Amino acid sequence: LAINEHYRAFIHILDESETEPFLHHLEAKENRSLPLYGLPFVIKDNIDLAGIPTTAACPAFAYVPDETATVVRRLIELGAIPIAKANLDQFATGLNGTRSPYGACRNSVLPDFPSGGSSSGSALAVALGIASFALGTDTAGSGRIPAAYNNLVGLKATRGLISTHGVVPACRTLDCTTLLTASASQASALFSLIAQYDPADDYSRKNPQWNGATAFGAVRPGFRFGVPQSLDFAGCPEGDALFAQAVARLKAMGGIPVPMDLSPFLEAARLLYEGPWVAERYFVVRDLLERDPKAILPVIRDVLEPAPGYSAVEVYAATYRLQHLKARCDAIMSGLDCVLTPTMPRPVTLAELHEQPVAANSLLGVYTNFMNLLDYAAVAVPSAFMSNGLPWGISLFGRAFTDQYLLSLADAFQRMSGLPLVGEQTLESPVKGRIAENDKARVVVCG
Amino acid sequence: LAINEHYRAFIHILDESETEPFLHHLEAKENRSLPLYGLPFVIKDNIDLAGIPTTAACPAFAYVPDETATVVRRLIELGAIPIAKANLDQFATGLNGTRSPYGACRNSVLPDFPSGGSSSGSALAVALGIASFALGTDTAGSGRIPAAYNNLVGLKATRGLISTHGVVPACRTLDCTTLLTASASQASALFSLIAQYDPADDYSRKNPQWNGATAFGAVRPGFRFGVPQSLDFAGCPEGDALFAQAVARLKAMGGIPVPMDLSPFLEAARLLYEGPWVAERYFVVRDLLERDPKAILPVIRDVLEPAPGYSAVEVYAATYRLQHLKARCDAIMSGLDCVLTPTMPRPVTLAELHEQPVAANSLLGVYTNFMNLLDYAAVAVPSAFMSNGLPWGISLFGRAFTDQYLLSLADAFQRMSGLPLVGEQTLESPVKGRIAENDKARVVVCG
Repeated sequence: LAINEHYRAFIHILDESETEPFLHHLEAKENRSLPLYGLPFVIKDNIDLAGIPTTAACPAFAYVPDETATVVRRLIELGAIPIAKANLDQFATGLNGTRSPYGACRNSVLPDFPSGGSSSGSALAVALGIASFALGTDTAGSGRIPAAYNNLVGLKATRGLISTHGVVPACRTLDCTTLLTASASQASALFSLIAQYDPADDYSRKNPQWNGATAFGAVRPGFRFGVPQSLDFAGCPEGDALFAQAVARLKAMGGIPVPMDLSPFLEAARLLYEGPWVAERYFVVRDLLERDPKAILPVIRDVLEPAPGYSAVEVYAATYRLQHLKARCDAIMSGLDCVLTPTMPRPVTLAELHEQPVAANSLLGVYTNFMNLLDYAAVAVPSAFMSNGLPWGISLFGRAFTDQYLLSLADAFQRMSGLPLVGEQTLESPVKGRIAENDKARVVVCG
Repeated sequence: LAINEHYRAFIHILDESETEPFLHHLEAKENRSLPLYGLPFVIKDNIDLAGIPTTAACPAFAYVPDETATVVRRLIELGAIPIAKANLDQFATGLNGTRSPYGACRNSVLPDFPSGGSSSGSALAVALGIASFALGTDTAGSGRIPAAYNNLVGLKATRGLISTHGVVPACRTLDCTTLLTASASQASALFSLIAQYDPADDYSRKNPQWNGATAFGAVRPGFRFGVPQSLDFAGCPEGDALFAQAVARLKAMGGIPVPMDLSPFLEAARLLYEGPWVAERYFVVRDLLERDPKAILPVIRDVLEPAPGYSAVEVYAATYRLQHLKARCDAIMSGLDCVLTPTMPRPVTLAELHEQPVAANSLLGVYTNFMNLLDYAAVAVPSAFMSNGLPWGISLFGRAFTDQYLLSLADAFQRMSGLPLVGEQTLESPVKGRIAENDKARVVVCG
C-alpha cells in the first residue's frame, strides 16, 4: 500500500475476503498440480473480474461486472490468483501512464520518468516484484511501451488469439489482450495456456497448430531479420549505439540482417492516429460524453471529441489506404522471419508529458502503432540500460500466427543479453532439443 | 448486331481492327497450344480493356483505359479473344439488368423477364451462344442472379482470388470478378488458370494449394450439405418442389442433408443493403454526382445519395454486428461442406421491375447478398426449368478457399440433372480418379 502511494500502480487491491475464493479453489487436492498454482497476477482495470469494479480509470464510468473476462477466468482455473486491478491511462487512451484520475504512474526505475502506458499499473506490478505476471491491453502499443520503460517483456500476440471478451473496448477491430512478464519464456508458457478460441468473443481466432506450445524452442541459425534503413531516435544520443548492439546480438544468434524500408509501416501507424479509427473509441464513452463530459479527462476528451464527426466515406478511404499499405508491408514481411525495431524512439520524461501531453505521448507510439492495424504479432523485449539507468527495449514483430517463433527469438535475445530480470526472477532452462517453428515450417511440411 | 437490338447485351462490339491484335497473338506458332486458344469471351463493361471505352453503363462516366485489367490480360495471354464489352446495371448497382441507358437486357429464354444483373450482357452472351464464357462482377449477387435467370453457372469465387485490378469498384472491400459459363467444369478450368495473386490488386489473396486445379474432381459420398429450415419463395408456387428436387439430387450424389438456421446469414444480407456499405459505392461516382447528377440514372442516384450521410460510428457499429453474425455463421459452416439455397426466391418479371424498381430488385438478392460480406465462396448452378420454361437455379456456398470443392459439387449436380447446356455446349468427361478436395482435406494431411 505504501508502494502504491508512490507508484499509483493499483486502482483496487483485493482484500482478504475478495481473494479468499481463489485461494479456496487451490486448496482442493486435485488442483495442487495446476500449471499456474498460486502465482499472483494483476489485471489492468479495463478487464472484468466479477464482483470487483471495472473503472477503465474513469470513476464515473465504473461498473461492477457479474462475469469475469474469459482470459482471467482461464488464468484462475489454471491456479493463478488475481491480487489487484491495475491503473491505466483512462479508457486505455494513451501510452504514458499519467492520464489517470487515480494518479500518474511513475517509472519503476527512475522517478522522473513515467511508467509508460496505457498498461501502466500492470507493468509496475511485475517490475516491482508484486506480481508474477500481469494482463494488459494493446491497441497501439499499450502493452509494449510500459514493458520497454520497465525492463519487461510485453507480448502483443496476434489479434484474436487471446480473448477480449470482458475487456472494455478501445478500438474493437484492433484490441489485443496482452501479457507483461519478466521473461519471454514465461510469456510463451502463459500464451500457450490462454490462446484458446473463445466463442464469446466475436473477434476470436483459432491458434494454428504450428503456433502452439511446441513451437517455442531454440532458434535455427540463418533466420532473416529486417533492419529498418533509417530510424528516428528523436534526438536521443544513445539510440544508434543501443540499436546497433541489438542488431549485433541477433547476428550473434545466427540471424541475417536484411535492410528494409519501414516507411509503409510508419505510414500505417500515422493512419491510426490521424484517421477515423478514433470513432471506434467513441462507442464506450458516448453515453458518458453526453451525460457528463467533465467526468472524462480533458486530454482524453480532446482525443475523442472529433470521433462522431468522421464520415463513413472517410472510414472506407482510410480502409483502402491501409489495405494498400498492408499489401506492401506483407510483401516485405514475406521474406523475413521478423523485424527488429526499437520499442520507442526514446523515453520521454514526466516533465515533457506535462508540457506537451499530446505530442510527447504520440512520440512514444511511432514504432508500436502499426502492428495491430497490419495484423502482425509483436513482442517487446528488454535490451539494455541507458546511461541514466533507464531500461531500453527492442521489439520483434512478424506475421500473424508466428507468436511462439517471435517469443523464441526474444528468449534467445534475453539469454544472450544477460540483463537482470525484474522481481529477482530467473530464466528457466530451455527445453532441450525443441526447435522454434513458424508458419513457414508448416509450408515445408505440407507443400 | 440484330440480336443486340433485341437483347441489348453489348455496349461495344469489337470491330475487326480492334480484335486484330488478339488474333495476331494467336498466329505465332508457339501459341497454338494455349489452353484457351481462340475462345471468344465478353467483358462486363466495368472491366478495362485497353483502348476500348469503359462505361460502367454511364456514358458521362466513360473513359478509355490505357491498361487492360489483370484478369483480362491473363485470359488473352492464354489465347482467349475478347469480342465485346457487355451491358450491365449502371455502376453494377442492381441485380436485374434493366438499369442501363444502353437498354434493358431481356431474358435469353422468356422476353417478359429480365436477364438478371448486374452482369446482364455477360450472361446473355454465353446464354445466346455468342461467347464461350464471360467475365462479370459480383458484390451482392451480380454474377449469380443473371446465371440463375439464363441456365448458366456463375462462380463468385473467394474474395481476392480473381484480380479486381482494372475493375470499376462498387464496394471495394467486397467486390469479386466472376465467371459465367455453361458448366461448372468450364468454370473450374478457367478459375484454376486465372486465380493468381496480383500485386497490383491490394485485395488480392494467394490461392492455397488445396484449392488448385487438382482439387476439382469426383465428390466423395458422405459430404454434409446445409439445408435451410425455412425458405421464402416469395409466393412462387413451384419453389418448394424445385428446391426439394435439388435436395434430392444432392442426396443422390451421396450428400447428407443437415437442417440449419439461415437467419444469421440473412441478417448479414440485410446489413449490406440497409447499412453504411453504400458509402463504398460513393467513391466512383462522387465527382460525377457533384458535376452532373442527371448523368446518373434516377434509380441509381436514389441508392447512392444517402452515402455521404453515413458516419464513421455507423460503419463501426455495422462492422461489429457483421463480425458477430460472421462468428455465428462460421460456427455453422464449420460442420458443413457446403450450403444449398435457391439462387433467388423467385424470378421477377420486367413488369414488376417497372412498377417497383427497388423492391423487385431487392427481392432477387435475398439469397446472394451475404456471401461477399461473410467471406464465403459461392457458385450458382442451373437446377431445373420452371413450368413457364424459365431456368431455375440453386446456389452452393462454402467457406473461403473451397471454390474447387464447390465447383466439384456443382459439376456432379449438373451431370445428374441432365439439363441441356446453353450454346449447345457439352460437358467434358470428368478426369478419372481425381477426388474433390477442400480445406478439411488439408487439416487431415497436416494435423
